[in-house]
Amino acid sequence: MTRVLFAAKPKTWAEYRAPLTAALAETGVTAEIVTLDDATDPATVDWIVYAPNSALQDFVPYTALKGCLCLWAGIEDVEGNRTLTAPLTRMVDTNLTRGMVEWVTGHVLRHHLGMDAHVVNPDRRWDGTPPPVATDRPVAVLGLGVLGAACARNLAELGFPVTGWSRRPKEIPGVRSVTGDDGLRDALSGARIVVLLTPHTRSTENLMNARTLGWMQRGAVLLNPGRGALIDDEALLAALDGHLGHATLDTFRVEPLPQDHPFWSHPRVTVTPHIASATRPASAARVIADNIRRGEAGMPMRHVVDRTEALT
Amino acid sequence: MTRVLFAAKPKTWAEYRAPLTAALAETGVTAEIVTLDDATDPATVDWIVYAPNSALQDFVPYTALKGCLCLWAGIEDVEGNRTLTAPLTRMVDTNLTRGMVEWVTGHVLRHHLGMDAHVVNPDRRWDGTPPPVATDRPVAVLGLGVLGAACARNLAELGFPVTGWSRRPKEIPGVRSVTGDDGLRDALSGARIVVLLTPHTRSTENLMNARTLGWMQRGAVLLNPGRGALIDDEALLAALDGHLGHATLDTFRVEPLPQDHPFWSHPRVTVTPHIASATRPASAARVIADNIRRGEAGMPMRHVVDRTEALT
Ligand SMILES: NC(=O)c1ccc[n+]([C@@H]2O[C@H](COP(=O)([O-])OP(=O)(O)OC[C@H]3O[C@@H](n4cnc5c(N)ncnc54)[C@H](OP(=O)(O)O)[C@@H]3O)[C@@H](O)[C@H]2O)c1
Ligand SMILES: NC(=O)c1ccc[n+]([C@@H]2O[C@H](COP(=O)([O-])OP(=O)(O)OC[C@H]3O[C@@H](n4cnc5c(N)ncnc54)[C@H](OP(=O)(O)O)[C@@H]3O)[C@@H](O)[C@H]2O)c1
Repeated sequence: MTRVLFAAKPKTWAEYRAPLTAALAETGVTAEIVTLDDATDPATVDWIVYAPNSALQDFVPYTALKGCLCLWAGIEDVEGNRTLTAPLTRMVDTNLTRGMVEWVTGHVLRHHLGMDAHVVNPDRRWDGTPPPVATDRPVAVLGLGVLGAACARNLAELGFPVTGWSRRPKEIPGVRSVTGDDGLRDALSGARIVVLLTPHTRSTENLMNARTLGWMQRGAVLLNPGRGALIDDEALLAALDGHLGHATLDTFRVEPLPQDHPFWSHPRVTVTPHIASATRPASAARVIADNIRRGEAGMPMRHVVDRTEALT
Repeated sequence: MTRVLFAAKPKTWAEYRAPLTAALAETGVTAEIVTLDDATDPATVDWIVYAPNSALQDFVPYTALKGCLCLWAGIEDVEGNRTLTAPLTRMVDTNLTRGMVEWVTGHVLRHHLGMDAHVVNPDRRWDGTPPPVATDRPVAVLGLGVLGAACARNLAELGFPVTGWSRRPKEIPGVRSVTGDDGLRDALSGARIVVLLTPHTRSTENLMNARTLGWMQRGAVLLNPGRGALIDDEALLAALDGHLGHATLDTFRVEPLPQDHPFWSHPRVTVTPHIASATRPASAARVIADNIRRGEAGMPMRHVVDRTEALT
C-alpha cells in the first residue's frame, strides 16, 4: 500500500479527489490518499502531491518521501525550499500547453487584427484598410520550453516570422533561435509583438526593465503569460506612456491584481486573471498518477525539476 | 503583343499599376495594359482584369476576349452576366486565404477565451475561472471551399472539434463532413461557434433564417466573414434578443454598413469593416499574370468559375 499525501487547499482537494482516485486506480497502483487534515504520521508518507500555496512548507518530517509532485507548472515557490530533498516534479499536461497556445495565439491575433477597435466602436467607424498579413508581423517569444516552444511553433504555422530566445539554442521548425544578451536585443528590437514565457528565476527577475523595454519598437505589444516578476512594473508603465503600444498581462507580482494597481486603469493595458493556462484536474490527475506508477516501478519519473540554480 | 484591359475603379488601378506591370514582365508575356479611360477598340482586347464594381458591365463589344480575370474571390456580381461568354476566373491567392484564416482563428479564439470581458472591464473584475479548452468547444464551418477548408483545418489543429458543411462530402483531416439539410441541422445544433464561408448564390441566400438560427444553441456565436446576404438580418436580430450569444459580422447586404443599421448599436453584435480577407495587390497581380501566361501558352487556366448555377 502506497501512501499519498494530497497537500493543497481544501478547494483543490474537492476538485481532485475523484479524478486522482480514479487515475491511481487506473494505473494499478494500490494507494491510500490522505490530506493534511488527517492525522497521518509524516514518516509513513511515500508521495506528496503538492500545491505551493499549501499549508505544508516544512518537508523535514517526511523522512521516507520518494517524491514531491507539484500540481503547478511554475515551481518557483517550492524549488528553493531546502527542507525538500526528495525529487520534485512539475506539472506538464497537454491541456496546460493547449490553454497557453490558445491564450497566446488568441491575444497575438487580437493585436495583429486590431480587434479592440471593432469590439469598442461607439463612433461606428468603418475603415476598410486591412491589417498586414501575419508574414509581415514579426513576433518574439522569450522562453522556448514546453509552453514557449508550442506557442512559437503555432505562431510560425500561422505565418508569423518568429524569433525565439532561450538559454541554449533550439531547433524548432519556422522559429529563428537566439540566445544571450545580444540575442535578447535582437529578438526585442525586431518584433511587433513580444511574448514572455520564461520561468521566474534569479536570472529572469525584471527581465523586462527600462533598458530592455527600450529595445522594443514604437507601438510594439508585450504579452506576459509567464510570471509577473519578469517585468519591472514601473518601467513598463513608463514605457506605455512613451513608445510602447500595449501590454496584455495574465500574471502579476501580487494576484489577484490589487484594485488600486495602475495597470487596471491604464488605457494601454489589458488584465486577464491568470487564466492563460490552468491545470485541469482530470488530465493533471492522470499525469500525477502515471509518475507515481513510474516511481513505484523504479522507472525514472517525468518532468523532474533541475533545482541547481534555485538552491545555489 | 497581348492587350490587357484593366477594368476597375481608378483607386484600384493606382494600387495595381506597378505590381501588375512587374508581374507580367516576370512571366515573359509581352503585354500592353490599358484602362477604361484609354480609347481602345474593344475588339482588340485579349484579356480583361476585372473588378465587379467597375463601370464595364457589357462585355458584348469584346469580341476577341480570351478570358475575364476577376480580382475578387466573391464573383456573384459578375457570374450571372450573360454578356460575358469568355471563361471567368476568380481570385485565389494565398494571402487571401491567410487573411481569412487569421480573421476566423482570431475571432473564434476571442469568443472562446471570453476576451471582451477583459478588454472592457471597468469594474476591475478578477474571475480566475479558466475557459474550457478548445477540445470542449465544438465549431461548425459552413462552406468548405478554399477559404472554409483552410479555416476548418486550422481550427482542428488548435484542438476544436470541427464539423464542416458543404454540397459534396469532403475529406479534411480532423474535420467531420456533413451535407444537405440534415447535415446543416446537425452542424448548427452541435456547435458553440458557427462560421459562414459559403458563397452567395440563390441556394445560400438567407441560409441563416429564423428556422436555421433556431437550430443554434443557447449562447452560441455566429461569425460571418462570407457574404451579408447569407443572413436574414431581421431574423438574426430577433435571435440575438433571444437565445443567441453574439454575432461578429464582416460582410453586410449594404457596405459600408449604414450608420443607422441596428447592427451598429446591438450589444451582441461586433462589426468589422469587410477586412477578413482583402486582396493584396502584389500577390494578386502575380496570380493574374500567371493565368494570362497559361492562357497565352494554351494551358488550362486556374480557378475558372463553373457558372452553371448562376446562368440557369
Ligand atoms: N499564466 C499561466 O497560466 C501559466 C501557466 C503555466 C506556466 N506559466 C509560466 O510559464 C513558464 C514557462 O513554462 P514552461 O513549461 O514552458 O517552462 P520550461 O519548459 O522550464 O521552459 C523555460 C524556458 O525558458 C528559458 N529560460 C529560462 N531561463 C532563462 C534565461 N535566464 N535566459 C534565457 N532563457 C531562459 C529556458 O531555456 P532553455 O530551454 O535553454 O533551458 C526554456 O526554454 C513557467 O515557468 C510559468 O512561469 C504560466
Ligand atoms: N470577408 C471577406 O473579406 C471575404 C473575402 C473573400 C471571400 N469571401 C467570401 O468567402 C466565400 C467562400 O470563398 P471560397 O474561396 O472558400 O469559395 P469556394 O472555394 O467556392 O467554396 C465554397 C464552399 O461553399 C460550399 N457551398 C456552396 N453552395 C453551397 C450550398 N448550397 N450548400 C452547401 N454548401 C455550399 C461549397 O461546397 P462544395 O465544395 O461541395 O461545392 C464549397 O465548399 C466567397 O464566396 C466570398 O463570399 C469573403
